[in-house]
Amino acid sequence: MSKTITLNQPLDMHIHFRDDDMLKLVAPLTAKTFAGALIMPNLVPPITTKEALMSYKKRIKEAQGFEDFEAFVTIFFQADYSYEFLADIKDEIIGIKLYPAGVTTNSETGVSSMDIKALSPTLESMSKLGIPLCVHGETNGFVMDREKEFMPIYESIASAFPDLTIIMEHITTKAAVDLLDKYPNLYASITLQHLIITLDDVAGGMLKPHLFCKPIAKRPEDRDALLKIAVEGHPKVMFGSDSAPHPKHKKEACGCAAGVFTAPIALQMLVQIFEENNALDNLDKFLSLNAQRIYKFKAIDKTITLVKKDYVVPSLYEAFSQKVVPMFADETIHWSLEQ
Amino acid sequence: MSKTITLNQPLDMHIHFRDDDMLKLVAPLTAKTFAGALIMPNLVPPITTKEALMSYKKRIKEAQGFEDFEAFVTIFFQADYSYEFLADIKDEIIGIKLYPAGVTTNSETGVSSMDIKALSPTLESMSKLGIPLCVHGETNGFVMDREKEFMPIYESIASAFPDLTIIMEHITTKAAVDLLDKYPNLYASITLQHLIITLDDVAGGMLKPHLFCKPIAKRPEDRDALLKIAVEGHPKVMFGSDSAPHPKHKKEACGCAAGVFTAPIALQMLVQIFEENNALDNLDKFLSLNAQRIYKFKAIDKTITLVKKDYVVPSLYEAFSQKVVPMFADETIHWSLEQ
Repeated sequence: MSKTITLNQPLDMHIHFRDDDMLKLVAPLTAKTFAGALIMPNLVPPITTKEALMSYKKRIKEAQGFEDFEAFVTIFFQADYSYEFLADIKDEIIGIKLYPAGVTTNSETGVSSMDIKALSPTLESMSKLGIPLCVHGETNGFVMDREKEFMPIYESIASAFPDLTIIMEHITTKAAVDLLDKYPNLYASITLQHLIITLDDVAGGMLKPHLFCKPIAKRPEDRDALLKIAVEGHPKVMFGSDSAPHPKHKKEACGCAAGVFTAPIALQMLVQIFEENNALDNLDKFLSLNAQRIYKFKAIDKTITLVKKDYVVPSLYEAFSQKVVPMFADETIHWSLEQ
Repeated sequence: MSKTITLNQPLDMHIHFRDDDMLKLVAPLTAKTFAGALIMPNLVPPITTKEALMSYKKRIKEAQGFEDFEAFVTIFFQADYSYEFLADIKDEIIGIKLYPAGVTTNSETGVSSMDIKALSPTLESMSKLGIPLCVHGETNGFVMDREKEFMPIYESIASAFPDLTIIMEHITTKAAVDLLDKYPNLYASITLQHLIITLDDVAGGMLKPHLFCKPIAKRPEDRDALLKIAVEGHPKVMFGSDSAPHPKHKKEACGCAAGVFTAPIALQMLVQIFEENNALDNLDKFLSLNAQRIYKFKAIDKTITLVKKDYVVPSLYEAFSQKVVPMFADETIHWSLEQ
């Protein structure tokens, strides 16, 4: 008899679907196994108008391929959004994504000043309207210090806007974990890869472009701190894969872009990790309940059953002329989706 | 009128020439502009016998293409070399290279124990015979800590064998710089790239395989410490490029090997760096005099004149079906070799 586990309403609260053919390839891979996902707005150009938002939402809907999946969308932070614009768009979005200029894929148009005063008009309106702020928290400093250096900025925003829900996205350091409980309005998402890898996996042996992401994987003690709060089901953290597809030829070229593609294997690996840590009872908190409480929504009813059975991850996901290499390509995971 | 500088007897005290077609491509690129170089023995299999050494020396001689160049060769450290073997080979080698197993290219057969006692028979003989020890000083720990973690091992060897000349090869950390003056018998080589780049250049923006090397480039404060002792002409440091050619297709493939190819542009860039730091007067110490004193030899008379004139680095060095991409490919250096 096989061991099985049934996940209720699994959610991925940070994912990149891209657009066009890549959207068509990746959206169904998430829609198949998740009840919902928060889709980031880093397109070129980024989503900053209601028109662009509604159009993207429609393209996602057309691409997702499974009806029992809810795409939560976001717009890209701008310091000068009017209160009226935000009030009008409020019910269409789940949050607003802020990223400093130049720190991640398609972030060239991001805010270049982290001067809280400059950002205040929008933050003030978001706070009043109850719109969460999703932040890619990195400075432009030395790669291993960028997240830690951003902590004072989180502290300033959290103090200045105590009613604003702030999500430290894809945290990678013990510094971020340590800050989490200091402010009641500060939350965090954690990716799959940052529960597993360190910089050693990216550049300690051979160079591994498919494990290269931003923020870059950090030190063993950072990874351990993230794993600890994830498996204990800490009420302020939730799963956000930051699954970021890049075409194979670009990912393997000289000067490859940052991003790890984990969407189709995330649930299987999360079950494996939580099982290894004797924490399967906490998986629904990390994967669903915490997110619903933090973002104040009720996910659609959808259950996914996994069975403890070895599964070899495909080398490639390919469709619509797009080829993407997943994390753990050609490796074996000990849990599979029930067929 | 152009500004020129004439370098006396420039030496590269740590370089990889490889073998076969790659040797034929790279050896002349060093032999053209250097008076001598210390060629590392990391072949497959590594050089551990007099026969293999003499044969490699002959192959280098045939490949170097310029008469006014002296190749100093080394053998690969083994803990059980007999005194008689070392006494016999002494006049043929300039040093013995020790690298822990698995830490660098073709190091699979390296010593797996850093237990000084186990290494003592060979170290004892080397000390008596006056053969310098060249060490790739990294543990198998977390990638950013490996060199620092190796410092106690350097300290043990330096204390236990006060008459042994020990070269900390291609140092990359402030920790190694700080250790340098603590033991009279401890010296260091520094590469070109570690005077210039940090981990930011390798993985802070896009991933850059051509800047990926071992030891990996470290933090800004480490780079600054290395640059400081190089440009001040510190008597215990010398230039060792660790120029390490890998075929282009392997370097740009997924899971690329470590090594930066700097041989043909090293002199031009060193002049540029020393000029930028108002330290041209110290360049002959870093590039020649210190090495001759540390290794106790007199380099052949050879001068190389460079002229302050922009020079675009080739995209590729290609010959004998080998293609290698140099550091600074397609970029402009402000000093050129005099034609």
